[in-house]
Amino acid sequence: MNASELDALLKAVRDGQVSPADARARLAGYATEDLGFATIDHAREARTGWPEVVFGAGKTPDQVAAARLPRAVHHESARAITVEVTPVAPLRGGVAVVCAGTSDLAIAEEAAVTATFQGASVTRIYDVGVAGIHRLLGRTSDLREADVVIVVAGMEGALPSVVAGLIATPVVAVPTSVGYGASFEGLAALLAMLNSCAAGLAVVNIDNGFGAGHLACTILRSAARLQEKNR
Amino acid sequence: MNASELDALLKAVRDGQVSPADARARLAGYATEDLGFATIDHAREARTGWPEVVFGAGKTPDQVAAARLPRAVHHESARAITVEVTPVAPLRGGVAVVCAGTSDLAIAEEAAVTATFQGASVTRIYDVGVAGIHRLLGRTSDLREADVVIVVAGMEGALPSVVAGLIATPVVAVPTSVGYGASFEGLAALLAMLNSCAAGLAVVNIDNGFGAGHLACTILRSAARLQEKNR
Amino acid sequence: MNASELDALLKAVRDGQVSPADARARLAGYATEDLGFATIDHAREARTGWPEVVFGAGKTPDQVAAARLPRAVHHESARAITVEVTPVAPLRGGVAVVCAGTSDLAIAEEAAVTATFQGASVTRIYDVGVAGIHRLLGRTSDLREADVVIVVAGMEGALPSVVAGLIATPVVAVPTSVGYGASFEGLAALLAMLNSCAAGLAVVNIDNGFGAGHLACTILRSAARLQEKNR
Amino acid sequence: MNASELDALLKAVRDGQVSPADARARLAGYATEDLGFATIDHAREARTGWPEVVFGAGKTPDQVAAARLPRAVHHESARAITVEVTPVAPLRGGVAVVCAGTSDLAIAEEAAVTATFQGASVTRIYDVGVAGIHRLLGRTSDLREADVVIVVAGMEGALPSVVAGLIATPVVAVPTSVGYGASFEGLAALLAMLNSCAAGLAVVNIDNGFGAGHLACTILRSAARLQEKNR
Amino acid sequence: MNASELDALLKAVRDGQVSPADARARLAGYATEDLGFATIDHAREARTGWPEVVFGAGKTPDQVAAARLPRAVHHESARAITVEVTPVAPLRGGVAVVCAGTSDLAIAEEAAVTATFQGASVTRIYDVGVAGIHRLLGRTSDLREADVVIVVAGMEGALPSVVAGLIATPVVAVPTSVGYGASFEGLAALLAMLNSCAAGLAVVNIDNGFGAGHLACTILRSAARLQEKNR
Amino acid sequence: MNASELDALLKAVRDGQVSPADARARLAGYATEDLGFATIDHAREARTGWPEVVFGAGKTPDQVAAARLPRAVHHESARAITVEVTPVAPLRGGVAVVCAGTSDLAIAEEAAVTATFQGASVTRIYDVGVAGIHRLLGRTSDLREADVVIVVAGMEGALPSVVAGLIATPVVAVPTSVGYGASFEGLAALLAMLNSCAAGLAVVNIDNGFGAGHLACTILRSAARLQEKNR
Amino acid sequence: MNASELDALLKAVRDGQVSPADARARLAGYATEDLGFATIDHAREARTGWPEVVFGAGKTPDQVAAARLPRAVHHESARAITVEVTPVAPLRGGVAVVCAGTSDLAIAEEAAVTATFQGASVTRIYDVGVAGIHRLLGRTSDLREADVVIVVAGMEGALPSVVAGLIATPVVAVPTSVGYGASFEGLAALLAMLNSCAAGLAVVNIDNGFGAGHLACTILRSAARLQEKNR
Amino acid sequence: MNASELDALLKAVRDGQVSPADARARLAGYATEDLGFATIDHAREARTGWPEVVFGAGKTPDQVAAARLPRAVHHESARAITVEVTPVAPLRGGVAVVCAGTSDLAIAEEAAVTATFQGASVTRIYDVGVAGIHRLLGRTSDLREADVVIVVAGMEGALPSVVAGLIATPVVAVPTSVGYGASFEGLAALLAMLNSCAAGLAVVNIDNGFGAGHLACTILRSAARLQEKNR
Repeated sequence: MNASELDALLKAVRDGQVSPADARARLAGYATEDLGFATIDHAREARTGWPEVVFGAGKTPDQVAAARLPRAVHHESARAITVEVTPVAPLRGGVAVVCAGTSDLAIAEEAAVTATFQGASVTRIYDVGVAGIHRLLGRTSDLREADVVIVVAGMEGALPSVVAGLIATPVVAVPTSVGYGASFEGLAALLAMLNSCAAGLAVVNIDNGFGAGHLACTILRSAARLQEKNR
Repeated sequence: MNASELDALLKAVRDGQVSPADARARLAGYATEDLGFATIDHAREARTGWPEVVFGAGKTPDQVAAARLPRAVHHESARAITVEVTPVAPLRGGVAVVCAGTSDLAIAEEAAVTATFQGASVTRIYDVGVAGIHRLLGRTSDLREADVVIVVAGMEGALPSVVAGLIATPVVAVPTSVGYGASFEGLAALLAMLNSCAAGLAVVNIDNGFGAGHLACTILRSAARLQEKNR
Repeated sequence: MNASELDALLKAVRDGQVSPADARARLAGYATEDLGFATIDHAREARTGWPEVVFGAGKTPDQVAAARLPRAVHHESARAITVEVTPVAPLRGGVAVVCAGTSDLAIAEEAAVTATFQGASVTRIYDVGVAGIHRLLGRTSDLREADVVIVVAGMEGALPSVVAGLIATPVVAVPTSVGYGASFEGLAALLAMLNSCAAGLAVVNIDNGFGAGHLACTILRSAARLQEKNR
Repeated sequence: MNASELDALLKAVRDGQVSPADARARLAGYATEDLGFATIDHAREARTGWPEVVFGAGKTPDQVAAARLPRAVHHESARAITVEVTPVAPLRGGVAVVCAGTSDLAIAEEAAVTATFQGASVTRIYDVGVAGIHRLLGRTSDLREADVVIVVAGMEGALPSVVAGLIATPVVAVPTSVGYGASFEGLAALLAMLNSCAAGLAVVNIDNGFGAGHLACTILRSAARLQEKNR
Repeated sequence: MNASELDALLKAVRDGQVSPADARARLAGYATEDLGFATIDHAREARTGWPEVVFGAGKTPDQVAAARLPRAVHHESARAITVEVTPVAPLRGGVAVVCAGTSDLAIAEEAAVTATFQGASVTRIYDVGVAGIHRLLGRTSDLREADVVIVVAGMEGALPSVVAGLIATPVVAVPTSVGYGASFEGLAALLAMLNSCAAGLAVVNIDNGFGAGHLACTILRSAARLQEKNR
Repeated sequence: MNASELDALLKAVRDGQVSPADARARLAGYATEDLGFATIDHAREARTGWPEVVFGAGKTPDQVAAARLPRAVHHESARAITVEVTPVAPLRGGVAVVCAGTSDLAIAEEAAVTATFQGASVTRIYDVGVAGIHRLLGRTSDLREADVVIVVAGMEGALPSVVAGLIATPVVAVPTSVGYGASFEGLAALLAMLNSCAAGLAVVNIDNGFGAGHLACTILRSAARLQEKNR
Repeated sequence: MNASELDALLKAVRDGQVSPADARARLAGYATEDLGFATIDHAREARTGWPEVVFGAGKTPDQVAAARLPRAVHHESARAITVEVTPVAPLRGGVAVVCAGTSDLAIAEEAAVTATFQGASVTRIYDVGVAGIHRLLGRTSDLREADVVIVVAGMEGALPSVVAGLIATPVVAVPTSVGYGASFEGLAALLAMLNSCAAGLAVVNIDNGFGAGHLACTILRSAARLQEKNR
Repeated sequence: MNASELDALLKAVRDGQVSPADARARLAGYATEDLGFATIDHAREARTGWPEVVFGAGKTPDQVAAARLPRAVHHESARAITVEVTPVAPLRGGVAVVCAGTSDLAIAEEAAVTATFQGASVTRIYDVGVAGIHRLLGRTSDLREADVVIVVAGMEGALPSVVAGLIATPVVAVPTSVGYGASFEGLAALLAMLNSCAAGLAVVNIDNGFGAGHLACTILRSAARLQEKNR
């Protein structure tokens, strides 16, 4: 909103042409609540389609407890807690979660649980690393049925490049810190994914299964909105 | 395709239940052409929805000339050549390309031209860096109308985080090498985007406007396919 | 401004208790102008006390020319152009610019010209590196007379630590890319300054003489405002 | 002091024109005390306005105990011990401490306690990260009332850039090691702050809340001295 | 296999000229077994001459237990478990394992056990670092008798360069993480080996004794196959 | 040779049991020639099976000319000069040189020319990158016929992992500096190859086609020697 | 020894002109003892003036015990064990060990104990960091009396530059890992010392107090030998 | 000088017991001359035994010309200019300069010229890299005759470790930027030298031949002073 538009809006409020409630809606997304040590952003879900997520590291138990989680579910393999405040509407479309080796399972599950929690249907394609490429090729039809594919890989991080060369679907690449020596805690896999010769991989942070699941669902929701518009 | 499925398919060919042509289709995507110094992957478009792109660096003029480009168009600001072999069908859905400063223009244009060439409609929102945050907030409605948003930023790379906090659309983040000193040729911006507190940014390589435009169109095409399925 | 304050403001506009102009002032700083390739932030000076600065790298001559600079002055040693749109009021207080070696002169001058342009009086104390510490000690009284001290150093970047141990004034440390080998383009000096045992150095980017001069003047202006309040 | 000035001073002592005490004052700041394993710098406070701070890491309990702390106060949230040897005079002017997320609280508190201990009045503005930018904008007036603003942020470290674009006050930026993967223990946030497009951020070391609080108070003390001079 | 070859093969199956079994053999290496959390690649040994190796990191005991290891042997000094499912045929040719210091023993043993398990005869030449070069020179004849030499070294990683200058045999260089400070967990040794003035060192990952032993045996097996062909 | 062995040898010389010539042979490989600015190692070929190679960088034309090259051949595509002083005997066994993209051609040719010069027969398999994996799979039989495979790849460096999963032959991996942004001049490809899940890749320095060709021939020569021994 | 010299020597042995014992002396330094897991270099002391030092990391207690240390002394503050097999002759000349802060004490003591064990007389000048430069200046005469000065510093590592500017004695600089954040485990101090504007600092590895003490004594011994020659 | 010593000195001046000239001598080393852009440290030679060296990078011709060099000599191979203001007295003792390959010649010459200019006698031992270790061993007696040895090496930087294991003399190690790929402009050689298993190498900055020559002469001068004291 530029200066003259703001002027016009405020004059319209003064003149009774726009109600304060409507004006507030046009200036919306500003509602926050100050808890002292935290500022809860209640409008985030309306604005971004995603409720606030709490990053637990570095917080005292009391600070975490202040969030009052009545219906928490602990997903052990994904090392995450989800809280179903209100049932999430199912998303149309499927997410395939692919991982290179079984050491990448925890991050793959973090992505799968995140996407499931948001309403997506999830297919798991695990342990199909590039050193035995035929395992992956044997799952090509499963890959092609998905609407978004998340590929989780540590070590040399080559799997997303190969997957993206097989399908026309958006590929979200998640480097993991699995490896040793010159893997440098996932840096090798991260750099490989950023430099993929398969153009247009969507790369997220090392070990960020949550971000990958979130991004996949954001893509599915965007598709749903686009469908609404085109009706 | 696992071992018994392969067996079954081959037996069905022997027994005349499946024609060689159909069997080949199930094993498809293998057609290639060997030019001596290059192996053209003619099936890529059918497989991935995207024609082969030529990376010109390190090639002799003769090698580039061998590609015979009858209808090439040079996009100067985007530093790219596009070749319209067959008209590309327009994609439903819009892409907003946002950049932080005018020094990021060339990369932003590379993304915009790539998306336009693929049939997307593109809105440009340029020079809205975070040090004058109200310029960005004034364009919020434009941002919300897009189906995918590409955000291009150098220096501290903070813009994608702010944009992703305002909208529910997928955000593709492109770090640029704009900066000096501790920007380390775009590393600072790249790390910032990978560590965004706005979960689920899709990050691409430094200065990779092409990859960002490609990813945005892949998302739009995926949405179109999903719509087809849901009909 | 939280949600209820916004409500209250808008209702006050509707009820005529607050004029649109006053409401706009409370929502101020939003005025921008869209030039197509750039979005000029005319309110920045009012908001931050500093006019917009143009980063020239990566821009075409036409894009730079669009800025129409009637009274530009080229400061050759500082590799900068200043444009005196309106005379800047002199700032109370002095800035000392210190540099370790004569190879750091260009960056030191960039800081000195920036501070002078903003109205500060500048004292130059050049070539007083730590390998001949008595040169620096001989200028201690000059250092103590300054209200802010900018210290520019490449190579091992030790000078700011020594200066900060001698005086009670804020010290702005500017690492430069002067050096070779393991200086890694100024990284060595940058890390040294960030790790100074003299607590509270204000470090800026490598070769960022402009930022240092700007920060020094921001400190002087803040002191002036504080004085106004305390009257 | 150059060679001839030193000559002149010493001759004046010989001739009785300057007393040894006055000469010593002109050569002051040299008083130290040797404890064997440590050399206490008793003159530091007079010279820099700041008593000696003990860095506890790597010291034996006996070495720490040798410091005899009669009135120590442990600030748990800030992980610091302060020792009020003599009451510190209150400083005129306020410091706002801003942090991006609640995981950054410990470092923010370290800065706040340090500034409070030095006599500054401190306002806390916590959990206002850039992914919900309106939380920050809602506190703009608090930010503008401060005389120095300390901004603490991990992950992508974008908050200081946004804050510095809103106000005319000096901004001290503190990167924290909060994050994972490509945050590389705070490196991502550090680089982002050094490359801020908001010119003139004062950056300190990763997790250096103490340095930030110290720098803020140094700025306030410098303002007070400037005011004395201008009377 | 290109498209026309695939066509020809399938038509030959249809016409009864090639049995499905033979066709499957020509498309071999696709047999996999899906355990849910893992996809076992049973054809790997036939394809690469090496049974599947399990990377234990990040797996639950149940996942490891699922592999049912009836005849496991724990090699303590090599920190490895080998499982002799079928007796491995002895390889013709010897492997010398050389290490610089006794701190590198565990990695050297990992290489030696891996090569022994594969059927190679192994000679150990330990503690012959370059700071006492005559210890190494005294073992030159042992080095020359080997068919492949593995050299394990941490710290400055100089040993492989010296060894490779003495013999005509392939040298596999293994950097270790032994060292401190600027060894950066083996990076110094890795870089030294990659930059060896002795052309053609085969470098593997830091601490990757297993990979070195595997590579040495791959070379011996390749020599055996070549001998078969030349008969 | 330990101390007592040395004693025994020298006493045998004294007693006429060993001739000085034989003793010298047992202490062989020490013959060098001092040119003033260079020390030619004439014994290297006898010792390592490889004549001395001249690294031209940083030398004056006169210094290079001092080498007197009567039959030099310039291989333009490989950016190398070979000098056939004496005809090299052909090596038994074939080397396949594989490259990912046509931008990697120069390095692949450097490897191919080096191997050809040493007497190996070379098969080129170019432009078979992982984003179109079927191009590579179509050449599997060519790969399996080689005795050593050199794989050259820039960008994400994934190709060697895939190749090594398909065959039982030693694989030499050559990272190239082809790429941009986060490829960091070949670092991304180098790290990927060092972290390959396909155990036992032999990695050489970035862009080191010469080293790869040399290593491949060293392996072939070692196989020939092993065959001699086993006769 | 070149080839003809070797020939001549061996012929002289044959002809009885040189005894085997004398010949052995001219080929000396080859005596080693193989313990299986270690190769003891008994000639090292004669060759380099320094007995073998055992690096304990990564060794089993049994391997360390094999060294049989009858007269071991544990220096707790230096975290070292010294074993006086034969009394070391005192060295002429003094070593000053200087450290910046008390957190650097353990490394400084490691250097001091190492030098003392070798026979040097050691002066400790501790806690004289650059933020209180006068503490250092007050010890200038002590510094000038030393024949070698070791300077130990963490954080910004500036102290060796300042010391080297004050004296004409060789300065050995030891970076320590003391610090946090952007000190990166001593990297900041290491880079600072390598880039010192005081030409000719002798830098050793991070935390390598032992190496510094050893180097200092090597310099003193070299001086003693030079004095012998000049008599 | 501590506070009471300063008091005592000044009182002695007042009482005529110490003349101002003597007092000044005890406070010596403070004489400087301010040229405006540079502060010449005329006392440096007296203080450190070394005249001021001018680092030319980043200076204008006029600034360099201001130094008025009447008897400059250009040493082309060393890329240095020396100015013999006063004849330098010859130093007792010899310096051996060793380099690994002929590409390192320029840096080796920079060290040799620097040492020659200071009065040392210099022996050059060039092109004796570790891949042909016998070239180096053949020069052992030359190495043992030197009083300080400078070793210059790029690539893997292994030469100083081997040299230091052969002799009892101080070794100054100079990494060079010779190399490519993972040499990272000399970083590989630098890290190798810092991590040498030969304790107590004196490492200087990459390509810093000047610093190495200076350090070698500082050691020789220290030996001469020690000899004076012991007379």
